[in-house]
Amino acid sequence: MRALSIFIIAVLIYTTTSAQQALWGGQDITSPEIHSNNTVTFRLQAPQATKVEITGDFLPTKKMQTQRGEIDVPGVAELIKNANGVWEFTTPAPLAPELYSYTMIVDGVGVTDPSNVYMIRDVASVTSVFIIGGGRSDLYKVNDVPHGTVARRWYNSPTLNMQRRITIYTPPGYESTDEKYPVFYLLHGAGGDEEAWIALGRASQILDNLIAQGKAKPMIVVMTNGNVVQKAAPGESERGMYKPSFMGETRMDGQFEASFPDVMKFVESNYRTIQTKAGRAIAGLSMGGFHSLHISKEYPDKFDYVGLFSAAILPNQNVTSPVYENMDGKLKIQFSNPPKLYWIACGTTDFLYQNNIDFSKKLTDNKYPYKFYETGEGHIWKNWRIYLTEFVPMLFR
Amino acid sequence: MRALSIFIIAVLIYTTTSAQQALWGGQDITSPEIHSNNTVTFRLQAPQATKVEITGDFLPTKKMQTQRGEIDVPGVAELIKNANGVWEFTTPAPLAPELYSYTMIVDGVGVTDPSNVYMIRDVASVTSVFIIGGGRSDLYKVNDVPHGTVARRWYNSPTLNMQRRITIYTPPGYESTDEKYPVFYLLHGAGGDEEAWIALGRASQILDNLIAQGKAKPMIVVMTNGNVVQKAAPGESERGMYKPSFMGETRMDGQFEASFPDVMKFVESNYRTIQTKAGRAIAGLSMGGFHSLHISKEYPDKFDYVGLFSAAILPNQNVTSPVYENMDGKLKIQFSNPPKLYWIACGTTDFLYQNNIDFSKKLTDNKYPYKFYETGEGHIWKNWRIYLTEFVPMLFR
Repeated sequence: MRALSIFIIAVLIYTTTSAQQALWGGQDITSPEIHSNNTVTFRLQAPQATKVEITGDFLPTKKMQTQRGEIDVPGVAELIKNANGVWEFTTPAPLAPELYSYTMIVDGVGVTDPSNVYMIRDVASVTSVFIIGGGRSDLYKVNDVPHGTVARRWYNSPTLNMQRRITIYTPPGYESTDEKYPVFYLLHGAGGDEEAWIALGRASQILDNLIAQGKAKPMIVVMTNGNVVQKAAPGESERGMYKPSFMGETRMDGQFEASFPDVMKFVESNYRTIQTKAGRAIAGLSMGGFHSLHISKEYPDKFDYVGLFSAAILPNQNVTSPVYENMDGKLKIQFSNPPKLYWIACGTTDFLYQNNIDFSKKLTDNKYPYKFYETGEGHIWKNWRIYLTEFVPMLFR
Repeated sequence: MRALSIFIIAVLIYTTTSAQQALWGGQDITSPEIHSNNTVTFRLQAPQATKVEITGDFLPTKKMQTQRGEIDVPGVAELIKNANGVWEFTTPAPLAPELYSYTMIVDGVGVTDPSNVYMIRDVASVTSVFIIGGGRSDLYKVNDVPHGTVARRWYNSPTLNMQRRITIYTPPGYESTDEKYPVFYLLHGAGGDEEAWIALGRASQILDNLIAQGKAKPMIVVMTNGNVVQKAAPGESERGMYKPSFMGETRMDGQFEASFPDVMKFVESNYRTIQTKAGRAIAGLSMGGFHSLHISKEYPDKFDYVGLFSAAILPNQNVTSPVYENMDGKLKIQFSNPPKLYWIACGTTDFLYQNNIDFSKKLTDNKYPYKFYETGEGHIWKNWRIYLTEFVPMLFR
């Protein structure tokens, strides 16, 4: 392959001089390295650094005092420098199957791992990620199974007077049949957007894998942007590459719920869908759980499957939107012909756990059918991925 | 909005303790800050660091000696620490309109900017990016114009015996009409994949903007994976989250060219396309330019528009693929009914410049019609974005 080798050599000479390599940030080491026993070694080439640490959700948590009392926060481990200026840390024990996030700390500065190109953004922060397989996390991996299509599109919302971006998963086979498919509307939390479930939630991998295993019905998954002040995720609208913020973009004022028929109209006129209550599901995490509660209640004949994942179920006094008025009366209407599944999931250490318990008690008191799925831990993506893998197999049965 | 404020306060208390913030990597500063006069300030909070530098393609280049002689490499600038432990550097002069890449260097370690969530991967390296508008770079921005759809799909390649991932842009209006559209096949270079033109090339923004301005015909853009050993971009196949490499994935052995009818068959049976020579264009950068040269020559009745962007036009002796045999004879056939446009673009400092000049001379000597578009600089994405903005308006006229 003389043509190839001449080309490779020329490009390498041209691009991998040391200064260029500094720009590209590349390091000739492997990090993270997942060993066969599921211990993991992290490495950072930093001969001039004084201290290199790592923090991540695979480290034992430590206690921290806050205004709300003691909470668990991720621990920090020190890397040790070897003779070549490469710092290393190996987990003392194998890691359980999971998708993990971590940050390197170089002389006090939290940074992504320069040797790992796999990163996920959560609001204004980007962390490095890796997956330990062998359990539920195999659902988060790209496996050798048929893959659906993921499209980023724009739809018209007359209610919000906006063109808005939306992410849509169509299952394997959608394009090669004339079948109609059920639709699952999957909503993000505060600080998220139409990229959150795809990136942090591994939604397309989870759907591909569950469908391939025969555990989920083929379905269309619609991932909206629930922030009514945004047309699109940060960087994807004419607002440009601004710094995302948690505070600035969140509204829980009924507008998203009121505009939701625009989303359904778009989906049902652009995709081959089953346009009955039995063919629609809605679920969301945190703020998206709050949205799912209210949307399913406002349009009580539309959704046979409702999922509240760590839902931000909040006192609704002093809220003026008509969406939040007469909640008890509207729930009574919704449950007069109840959804086939009303599923509430929450972690026991979630700061919203008591709100979810209180809401469940209200349903119980009224004899409204629902299921409660309790896990450990709190308001974290690990739980929301778990809830998605549990919820999806129950849909459209 | 009491419900909102209770929720926001609770989440902030829960998530923004200092340890959590270290994991999330967030810094409460703005970087980069683009000033109204287009100077730019970069900031990094690093009270414990000894030295903080920045390197990027907006800095004056410096000369470096290599085996191929002196070449230009990006310069490095030092940031200065203020009393709050925040390091700063402001460009001494306004920056010209462009999409720029940069890397922070903290005590010798090249890292992405923790305050900037906008990053682009190039092979195994991720750099922070920003756009200075006001010129051609306005085409690289998301503007308030109708947006096309970008879909990541999988197609069957019987020739390679693989399901393969592909990125497809359909123009605004595609879904709401019954019209047939022309198709532009846009190929990446060595080290790239089906994500390269979308991420580094800003292809969807360039198409949206040129179409909105009436400068380009609405068209479908098909971005393939040209590495026949890959099913998909790194992280998007069952090979998992491996470290991408430039050397390991590149083959210029004729297999991609031989399998290209599988791509066309998929596109033409899944999209409403104009299935004539006048309705097809093909272009690519570097290795993708080499692929475009050979594909357009192998299937001489298929493409009326051919673009070679910094093409890796190489001596083809000692290459055994039938695709590369009898090149002169096949070019003669192709140019017996020549493409409407055969467009060769190259930068004057590109290491492939002479190869492109030599190939052009061969075309001239044979009286084959072509156009040569020359720019400054070399084998860089800045040039490939420019070539895309120049090439697309000439298509399907």
